[in-house]
Amino acid sequence: MSVPPVFNPDIHKQLQPKQQRNIAYYIDGIKAGNRYILSESITLLESSVPDKRALGTEILNHFKNDNTSTIRVGITGTPGVGKSTFIEAFGCYCISQGHKVAVLAIDPSSQVNQGSVLGDKTRMPNLSTREEAFIRPTASGTMLGGTAIHTKETIEMCEAAGYDMVLIETVGVGQSEIEVGFMSDVNILLLQPGAGDEIQGIKRGIMENADIFVINKADGALHSLAKQSKITYRNAIQLFHHPLEGWKMPIILVSSTEERGLDDVFLAIAQFKEKMLYQHLFSDKRTQQNQRWFYTKSKELIEELVFNHPEFRSNFKTLSDAIQNKSISPSSALSRINDILHKIIGS
Amino acid sequence: MSVPPVFNPDIHKQLQPKQQRNIAYYIDGIKAGNRYILSESITLLESSVPDKRALGTEILNHFKNDNTSTIRVGITGTPGVGKSTFIEAFGCYCISQGHKVAVLAIDPSSQVNQGSVLGDKTRMPNLSTREEAFIRPTASGTMLGGTAIHTKETIEMCEAAGYDMVLIETVGVGQSEIEVGFMSDVNILLLQPGAGDEIQGIKRGIMENADIFVINKADGALHSLAKQSKITYRNAIQLFHHPLEGWKMPIILVSSTEERGLDDVFLAIAQFKEKMLYQHLFSDKRTQQNQRWFYTKSKELIEELVFNHPEFRSNFKTLSDAIQNKSISPSSALSRINDILHKIIGS
Repeated sequence: MSVPPVFNPDIHKQLQPKQQRNIAYYIDGIKAGNRYILSESITLLESSVPDKRALGTEILNHFKNDNTSTIRVGITGTPGVGKSTFIEAFGCYCISQGHKVAVLAIDPSSQVNQGSVLGDKTRMPNLSTREEAFIRPTASGTMLGGTAIHTKETIEMCEAAGYDMVLIETVGVGQSEIEVGFMSDVNILLLQPGAGDEIQGIKRGIMENADIFVINKADGALHSLAKQSKITYRNAIQLFHHPLEGWKMPIILVSSTEERGLDDVFLAIAQFKEKMLYQHLFSDKRTQQNQRWFYTKSKELIEELVFNHPEFRSNFKTLSDAIQNKSISPSSALSRINDILHKIIGS
Repeated sequence: MSVPPVFNPDIHKQLQPKQQRNIAYYIDGIKAGNRYILSESITLLESSVPDKRALGTEILNHFKNDNTSTIRVGITGTPGVGKSTFIEAFGCYCISQGHKVAVLAIDPSSQVNQGSVLGDKTRMPNLSTREEAFIRPTASGTMLGGTAIHTKETIEMCEAAGYDMVLIETVGVGQSEIEVGFMSDVNILLLQPGAGDEIQGIKRGIMENADIFVINKADGALHSLAKQSKITYRNAIQLFHHPLEGWKMPIILVSSTEERGLDDVFLAIAQFKEKMLYQHLFSDKRTQQNQRWFYTKSKELIEELVFNHPEFRSNFKTLSDAIQNKSISPSSALSRINDILHKIIGS
């Protein structure tokens, strides 16, 4: 691994005023390892303003992203399982192994947070002070139906800035894990030490999506329970067939507070990636994710264009109001929209 | 309530051959209380063939649906909580109170099931033999990301056929409950008797979406545990503010097998509806749901039209293939699609 660029804590004092910020400002800033400018670039990508998004995309396109030297790790688990404590400890361990670590985190406390240089200070006090780490929190209040705002582009921007290990946290409500599955190379499911009963509470879909299982909090009074749990979980996951040939899903006991088991998790990720590469699946998976991204983004563009089309827009508004006034039935309104769409889109 | 039409178990023998089935066949069949024809009509509504869907909509439009004499009840709970046993017992209770009950059920066992006259015989043996009940199973395998195929139109078709109580089962994985929230008038969350620990496993979003809480399996060895749980759950839900003014969310102990507590659930639904009506929110909620339906369906129409547009279709395919061959970057492909869309849609 190349030596990470030296971080200058005073660089934010040299920021250009907003109006002067051109694409070179962002590109140079990212190249220089300026985390504030990286954060600003991500904010552009995530903006609802088309011009800002376009600038963000332009910045991203400047960096070549088709490399397989990075790894994208999805980290899932129900609330209370200790996700942030694990990410804190595991992130620091990865740094000790020579990696630069970006964390796309969920911040449950804040409703609006545009990301900051120092990141999530309270939840990850050690990691957030490391210059080899970049923490990008998403306020949980800004998510709809458990869907994180973090996108494939956010991941790619972090990689462009030299973060070769991207940890993507999800809140464990179902839908978001499926979406992260479309972005990550490998998925870790964090589990509680506990009896067999608790397994029922874990959604099958989330278990099936996992490549590596981690029993967290395997320390103190819970240590012997965690060891028992491992057997129970082992029996449970034997039911699942992993799509990667020859991959025996590991169940790893971890104490995030005592920093035990982190090396095993690190090794399991490396082994998983190696197996993926060997079977030529690593690059294939990312290509499929790219195609899926292209499909999803195309749909969003279509919607945006049609809903901003003046004729569609005014008719849609009129019909929606008519439904409210009960002067038209929803299905009759839809039939009218269908006619208008045929006129606008033609063939 | 009017007396339900007498069900003739031999009526399916008099079915017209497929080619002769016109709209009158369906309308007359539904009016006559023929559950097989009702099921066929729903299949039309849920069809992926536009002509069939159009016929289904035409049938539905024949029946006036803007009445508030029906009630749509969402029933949610994690796997194993006893949803089908509860629906079986509660459905029979509602029939004993003079209602006709339609159940939009999730069938975990079958992958393909077009619905049958007798419905879900094994899971709901008593309810499925009652002529005042109509059970429409959706195979869980046909759902994507936990989203049920059942739609607002399916509910309306059941109401058109005289079923004034519609029970909508969901699988409890997050997203589907949110969607049912856009279709139901009132939502019941089924809970297990258990200690406080288990509450953590229930997603906050699902709890917040519930209007009535039912602790199921409050019988036998679990009865005293269920009583304790009620206190724990009471403390937990005190954190939530219900949007309906003055609604104190009830927590009801139910034994589905011993048929206890079902009357309390029935009463709670009636009280909730009364409060909604009194605050003029019942009809408002349905109107909002109609507007949302109109928006969602419009989006689907737009996608369908654009993705079937010859020029878009061929370009999209070419670009998607190019992403696969890595001869174009995803964002460059998207930029090309943007140009094509501007040409097709114009302004």
